[in-house]
Amino acid sequence: MTNQSTPTINHYVALIKLKSFDESLVFIEDVTQEIINYLDLKVVKKTSHLFSPKGVTLAYILSESHLVIHTWPELTTVHIDLVTCSYRGIEEFKTSVNSAFSEEDIESIEIKSVDF
Amino acid sequence: MTNQSTPTINHYVALIKLKSFDESLVFIEDVTQEIINYLDLKVVKKTSHLFSPKGVTLAYILSESHLVIHTWPELTTVHIDLVTCSYRGIEEFKTSVNSAFSEEDIESIEIKSVDF
Repeated sequence: MTNQSTPTINHYVALIKLKSFDESLVFIEDVTQEIINYLDLKVVKKTSHLFSPKGVTLAYILSESHLVIHTWPELTTVHIDLVTCSYRGIEEFKTSVNSAFSEEDIESIEIKSVDF
Repeated sequence: MTNQSTPTINHYVALIKLKSFDESLVFIEDVTQEIINYLDLKVVKKTSHLFSPKGVTLAYILSESHLVIHTWPELTTVHIDLVTCSYRGIEEFKTSVNSAFSEEDIESIEIKSVDF
């Protein structure tokens, strides 16, 4: 329950299974940028890491909190973790994730909201 | 439900209310380091941002995924978001968070697990 002494926190998580996977960094950066643009998020810091043999993590500090994306190319899976302290609705988040991938590439998308 | 084609993901979130708040960067870095040490996490990248007029975000990419901490000093609140793809139990996470703060400073700690 939110009260006057608690920050507004919208926390959404997406687990996406794709039918195939483009392992390039530019692919996942483009996906992330689509989500950032759709949700009108402002990036203030960014870091990334390429794992061996596969997988990427992109971590963005936002003026509204954070967005972190992990990929597991060998499992054709992407995990998206968004925390915002300015309002974004879960439907907006769902739409942003769906829009960021080509429809024919999506096997499944599961979305969770983390509520205190 | 986890299956062979899904990565292992342990995702825990903590919302901590403190009785008072040390606004220094070193305080929250020390808290974070305690959690990292307790859970034996390996940091591969780190970035941080100081918000105006108050508040800090620390984002760590881990060899096991990510850890992001936000502070709202004006609301004496800390938010901790941990995603690991190597096993850590929720009880370990709870203990790590409890141990990272002085007992007399804690007003409340709420913990959530995000499960797909």
